[in-house]
Amino acid sequence: MSKGRGSGALAVVCLSGGLDSCVTLAEALTRHREVAALHLSYGQRTEERERRAFEEICDHYGITRRLRATQPALGAIGGSALTDPSLEVPDASAGSSAIPVTYVPFRNAQILALGCAWAEAIGAEAVYLGAVEEDSSGYPDCREDFFSAFQRVVDEGTRPETRIEIRTPLLHRTKGEIVRRGLELAAPLHLSWSCYSESEEACGVCESCRLRLKGFAEAGAVDPIPYRKSSG
Amino acid sequence: MSKGRGSGALAVVCLSGGLDSCVTLAEALTRHREVAALHLSYGQRTEERERRAFEEICDHYGITRRLRATQPALGAIGGSALTDPSLEVPDASAGSSAIPVTYVPFRNAQILALGCAWAEAIGAEAVYLGAVEEDSSGYPDCREDFFSAFQRVVDEGTRPETRIEIRTPLLHRTKGEIVRRGLELAAPLHLSWSCYSESEEACGVCESCRLRLKGFAEAGAVDPIPYRKSSG
Repeated sequence: MSKGRGSGALAVVCLSGGLDSCVTLAEALTRHREVAALHLSYGQRTEERERRAFEEICDHYGITRRLRATQPALGAIGGSALTDPSLEVPDASAGSSAIPVTYVPFRNAQILALGCAWAEAIGAEAVYLGAVEEDSSGYPDCREDFFSAFQRVVDEGTRPETRIEIRTPLLHRTKGEIVRRGLELAAPLHLSWSCYSESEEACGVCESCRLRLKGFAEAGAVDPIPYRKSSG
Repeated sequence: MSKGRGSGALAVVCLSGGLDSCVTLAEALTRHREVAALHLSYGQRTEERERRAFEEICDHYGITRRLRATQPALGAIGGSALTDPSLEVPDASAGSSAIPVTYVPFRNAQILALGCAWAEAIGAEAVYLGAVEEDSSGYPDCREDFFSAFQRVVDEGTRPETRIEIRTPLLHRTKGEIVRRGLELAAPLHLSWSCYSESEEACGVCESCRLRLKGFAEAGAVDPIPYRKSSG
């Protein structure tokens, strides 16, 4: 557990290792004395790189309480280009209003379910998730209505004395605002990883890279992670 | 997938391998043409025995579409005598109105989250779970309010065109009614396993065994599985 500056007690932060979860962790540390970090691997293409980002961000903040969870079945059920090697991660430029093929069915429900179980077991008062509704990819489990509904599930499905609040501090922020807030909080953005397809140098062209680069551009800042020379 | 007698399309059944999930599967097969079965191992004491029951019940019905999921983190977070070897599974006779120590935090949320993700990926119209509210152990995630709340999460958190109904046909039945219904449907109760602590002969004294034996007694039937001689 890392000692944060906040006055709240223990919180669980779901930390994929991407830009948004990195800034979410920084936000949680302003409000909680202690933070425990959860990472979920589910067979995504870049899971080793994501896990490394998780560990390095935790090291940066001195977070010692870490839960490294695996749910290979979520990848095995397929249906997403993030986990199914037979589907290609598309360039963002393909552009469509439909839900993209990188959507992993109901992923945030898995992460929240595990985060809340852990929170109940260790007595945490909140579970943080770095979801972004606006300026995001249109995944159905990244919308406020989904999180409101999940809050009720937590209230109903845990012990009567358990009070766990789902918190998504970035939900209504743009990528530019997220980058600015990260810089303001001195979050270790150089340790975060967002690319859906590469692990050494970010591809710069997948939707996750595009959104990240857009955020840095809007914030008037330079993204400190390496990109392939041919990209962006 | 097994060909059921029902007229509905594909359904996912969460099948732990216990009495309740065995009868729930039998119910689902009366309503759906095809059934796919999901088992979740999470570090519970009797997980190998449960998995064997899952496989044998699937074999019995000719269900070929099986998802064997593991979520070891759920066991690792502890807090339950079902997964923590340092806690003893108590005799039911210990008796208390409190939530028992065998409660695994938010377990049904994990199972439903995975079941619904799978249902969305394979186009199933329903997810069945063998939860029993009345005549159960008082777990908070076995109550109707929990499942109603989870239904909203599914509606909000999946693709707009996805329609998945959570079904808990045993929720308001007594254990006696469940056994009678299982016998009526010729469910393979002899292949099911409910004991929380033993894998060869059921202990007969843990809360799960007690509820099971009570059900058979109420139904005027003899439980076909082996029990330790010293028990019951």
